[in-house]
Amino acid sequence: MMWRRTIDPGLGEKYNSRTKRLINKDGSFNIVKLGRELRLYDAYQYLKNISVGRLSFLLLCFYLFINSLFALLYLWCGVENLHGIEPGLPPFLNAFFFSVQTFTTVGYGVLAPHGMATNLVVTLESFMGWVGFAIITGVVFSRFAKPHVRILYSNNAIIAPHEGGKSLQFRLANKRNSVLLEMEARVMLMVQDTNFSRHYYNLKLEQSSLYFFPLSWTIMHHIDEESPLYNVTPKELEEKRAEVLVLIKGYDEAYGQTVHSRFSYRFNEILWDVRFKEVYNSDTRGEIVLDLLKLHETEPVSEPAL
Amino acid sequence: MMWRRTIDPGLGEKYNSRTKRLINKDGSFNIVKLGRELRLYDAYQYLKNISVGRLSFLLLCFYLFINSLFALLYLWCGVENLHGIEPGLPPFLNAFFFSVQTFTTVGYGVLAPHGMATNLVVTLESFMGWVGFAIITGVVFSRFAKPHVRILYSNNAIIAPHEGGKSLQFRLANKRNSVLLEMEARVMLMVQDTNFSRHYYNLKLEQSSLYFFPLSWTIMHHIDEESPLYNVTPKELEEKRAEVLVLIKGYDEAYGQTVHSRFSYRFNEILWDVRFKEVYNSDTRGEIVLDLLKLHETEPVSEPAL
Amino acid sequence: MMWRRTIDPGLGEKYNSRTKRLINKDGSFNIVKLGRELRLYDAYQYLKNISVGRLSFLLLCFYLFINSLFALLYLWCGVENLHGIEPGLPPFLNAFFFSVQTFTTVGYGVLAPHGMATNLVVTLESFMGWVGFAIITGVVFSRFAKPHVRILYSNNAIIAPHEGGKSLQFRLANKRNSVLLEMEARVMLMVQDTNFSRHYYNLKLEQSSLYFFPLSWTIMHHIDEESPLYNVTPKELEEKRAEVLVLIKGYDEAYGQTVHSRFSYRFNEILWDVRFKEVYNSDTRGEIVLDLLKLHETEPVSEPAL
Amino acid sequence: MMWRRTIDPGLGEKYNSRTKRLINKDGSFNIVKLGRELRLYDAYQYLKNISVGRLSFLLLCFYLFINSLFALLYLWCGVENLHGIEPGLPPFLNAFFFSVQTFTTVGYGVLAPHGMATNLVVTLESFMGWVGFAIITGVVFSRFAKPHVRILYSNNAIIAPHEGGKSLQFRLANKRNSVLLEMEARVMLMVQDTNFSRHYYNLKLEQSSLYFFPLSWTIMHHIDEESPLYNVTPKELEEKRAEVLVLIKGYDEAYGQTVHSRFSYRFNEILWDVRFKEVYNSDTRGEIVLDLLKLHETEPVSEPAL
Repeated sequence: MMWRRTIDPGLGEKYNSRTKRLINKDGSFNIVKLGRELRLYDAYQYLKNISVGRLSFLLLCFYLFINSLFALLYLWCGVENLHGIEPGLPPFLNAFFFSVQTFTTVGYGVLAPHGMATNLVVTLESFMGWVGFAIITGVVFSRFAKPHVRILYSNNAIIAPHEGGKSLQFRLANKRNSVLLEMEARVMLMVQDTNFSRHYYNLKLEQSSLYFFPLSWTIMHHIDEESPLYNVTPKELEEKRAEVLVLIKGYDEAYGQTVHSRFSYRFNEILWDVRFKEVYNSDTRGEIVLDLLKLHETEPVSEPAL
Repeated sequence: MMWRRTIDPGLGEKYNSRTKRLINKDGSFNIVKLGRELRLYDAYQYLKNISVGRLSFLLLCFYLFINSLFALLYLWCGVENLHGIEPGLPPFLNAFFFSVQTFTTVGYGVLAPHGMATNLVVTLESFMGWVGFAIITGVVFSRFAKPHVRILYSNNAIIAPHEGGKSLQFRLANKRNSVLLEMEARVMLMVQDTNFSRHYYNLKLEQSSLYFFPLSWTIMHHIDEESPLYNVTPKELEEKRAEVLVLIKGYDEAYGQTVHSRFSYRFNEILWDVRFKEVYNSDTRGEIVLDLLKLHETEPVSEPAL
Repeated sequence: MMWRRTIDPGLGEKYNSRTKRLINKDGSFNIVKLGRELRLYDAYQYLKNISVGRLSFLLLCFYLFINSLFALLYLWCGVENLHGIEPGLPPFLNAFFFSVQTFTTVGYGVLAPHGMATNLVVTLESFMGWVGFAIITGVVFSRFAKPHVRILYSNNAIIAPHEGGKSLQFRLANKRNSVLLEMEARVMLMVQDTNFSRHYYNLKLEQSSLYFFPLSWTIMHHIDEESPLYNVTPKELEEKRAEVLVLIKGYDEAYGQTVHSRFSYRFNEILWDVRFKEVYNSDTRGEIVLDLLKLHETEPVSEPAL
Repeated sequence: MMWRRTIDPGLGEKYNSRTKRLINKDGSFNIVKLGRELRLYDAYQYLKNISVGRLSFLLLCFYLFINSLFALLYLWCGVENLHGIEPGLPPFLNAFFFSVQTFTTVGYGVLAPHGMATNLVVTLESFMGWVGFAIITGVVFSRFAKPHVRILYSNNAIIAPHEGGKSLQFRLANKRNSVLLEMEARVMLMVQDTNFSRHYYNLKLEQSSLYFFPLSWTIMHHIDEESPLYNVTPKELEEKRAEVLVLIKGYDEAYGQTVHSRFSYRFNEILWDVRFKEVYNSDTRGEIVLDLLKLHETEPVSEPAL
């Protein structure tokens, strides 16, 4: 295989050993970073990206923890400095419920602070409730403000007969209801040498941009003489640990922002001599219907691989 | 008609039947998506895009529902664990008003919780008020943060005599007071074959971009020999279910974001042998006045259609 | 004057009368729009753009108004349904202070609601406090989130001797401490015919872009034979009601957004045969100092105007 | 040295004296601006950019200050108009704690206002709590909403043997866990004449853009005959007070925004005849590991500088 090389896209060329896949199925890079600063900012990024269930759970834990902490402080100031405690409940619970009423600023007043120390703790806790609430509002809104683009990629790329020759194909669709516009695609092939060096090649696409994206998009690389995949066999792809790197870019109308998505197909995720089944069509009422569940479906083709 | 074809803009070429219009009057695509994931995110997008009246109504319903729910919880904990209830009101209403005072953190304290179970429910409800408030703040602000571009398009496109030949024209203006800059327009023609295949053609525009957009903009496609509309008749457009697809892009100064707008004119929305009336001019005091209500107005022209 | 015309930048060409300046000193367009929809959205835009003082005043008025309104509702429900009123204050003030304590969720509880009607009003007012607070948070944050670019333009443009010929010059600087990058400038000349038609010409600039913008920027158009200003006199500029339109674009680092600024110089704001004084230099300690107050300063040059 | 000059990137060319470095290590410009307007907006920008610790401290100070202020107002209205004060505490503290309970809307009600003056102050303080909270939420969220890109630059640039000649190199990596894409680099050389004039030269890069940035990036300028650094010596660089200006631009995926970073190397921060040690490689388990702590490490090369 005589392949024209492209420049390093930022993933490194010289390595000492075989490595795992470069781009994980969720779009992240398979790279470990040492010596990174850990900052409050990272906690914020964490809260911004976890699931709603986990975020709710963490918030509840934080809420119970901070109130328990202040309950202990109130006990330390002396339970006699809380007016209106219920004798039937243990002191800690009285203090805890008082703390809840203070932190959330409910403040019924049946439980009320007395004396300087307790009042100072109240002053502090109200302040923390004040700031904590601003923080949680910021976190919740940040989750909203961030484009949640979810591109569904077909499970497999295929190499199929195409216009006399062959082509590498895969398809994608917008999982969400949002409107994506002005899509752009870039596809690269990564192969490893026997000395573990990596090389990267741009794959030329039949159509690398799309104005609208309400349907599915089949991305096609025609394997002609200039393609690094020309006359390549499944065995060669495996030996070279080939990985097809996919970069999608588009404009998310709901946020007025450009969004990106990454994906990759390793050699063992490329099917040969199949083609994709139809994923959208019009019904008798004139409606155009796209069925995301059919995006992955392929069927064998009779023509043998070259 | 010998027409040069353009590539598929992402709306599909092969179909089994005649279909409805591609782009609805509100700019959405006439496509049904099956197998889509429904997520909390979609609820958020829904709340972000509905009218202010409907949002207020939904918020009020949610508010009454959550307080009724907690009222039932307080009743379940035993109405005797609420201090200060009014004997003249039914227990549910007492519990409901107590819930309101807890959820919104008013907490007068005349109604106050007693005992562990009730206090635990209070702890939970205050937490939900805390988080619920962060969520509603996020929703309200998201509605503000989103550019609300509203382009007013003339009800009809026209095909009118123009510089010896003919031209396809329509016009648009900014319905809002916001400043739009660096406008770009792209216009495509979609026609259907007898076998229901669709073809898309770019229409070349006299002026496809504009620095400023404080007035109206008349977009013109001169129908010359290279145009897919050359020598076409109204009957042909109808047979081919022609649809003129309009894409407008601009920069919204108030948000610092690029905004998009889509529109379409079907064959039956194209008027022949009329021209647009004047929509702006200067008055005697030197003021330039644009009247949006005149944007749709046309008048017949004497020259016969070719 | 033989001038090459440019296309309409979106400000119209045919008019019936002389008009005022096109671009006001604050960058807005001198155009009146009729038939515009008034929406809640416009109120929001208004609140977003007024001064801090006026916003505070409006908020205080709104706060007093809403509490007065609810005070009347509480009176209508019967002042006897408010527990704990002070006999020494008039009923309205008692109801007003109770409303304040409810709307802001302070809820001391000395004043407390009684009976179903009053409690329902409380339910409604707490809800409105809840939502109103979300709205005010949204407005306040929107003001923060919006880039506040303030470009200071020299009061006058000048036509000065330059490299053997003449050039049109003006200068600008960033009034704020923010970092602006990748600046771009576009300058147009607008002139009116005797029949009130307007024509627009691009003026070619010596340097139309700048990487950084921490200092001042002197924008220069060299008046060569291709310039529409070649051999023009002050009298001609006045007769043609000439207006120099200035468009500045840059990237505001603090917001990660592109910002725009507009300005214009009318014929009577162009000075002849002067040059700009120095506005920045280095001092003896090696500090580079830019003095914004000197931006407007010019000095006469000995060479006579052509 | 015969160097081709580039245009002024916006940092000025004519000066009266030697100046300090142009770009500080934190990316700010070494320029003092006089006559700048000070606005509330600047306070906001200040709060947005300081450290979390300092922000918390300032907020706490503000909280204590505003409550002390209102405490004085309540004393001025007469301490007898506060119901429920603790005789064991000084009047100021009683008023202070009442103020805290009002500003944060806790409002237990044990301390409660009496009389018109005190109630009016309560009305004002609740309003300020209402607005102040909106402001603090806005500030907190602004800090979250702003991309926090932190590029780590190698402490030194190096001039090292490279492909037969020499090259200027430095490297950088993303200190944070965020995903940066579509990086672009621009490098300029600034030198001062003996008359303190400055000149700027673009340095041509081997690779000036990168798709991905999960690893480190070594930026290289090959010093060929067209380079302003051709045959230059360390002594010449010092005489000319040379400064290498670095501009990095990329897309931050977490925010959907373009981010910028600036850096500079002065003549005394350029090492000669060393090369960079390896900063990433794959381990035996196939993991790719990047060690940020090694980014600055260099080792001598045997070949002598030309």
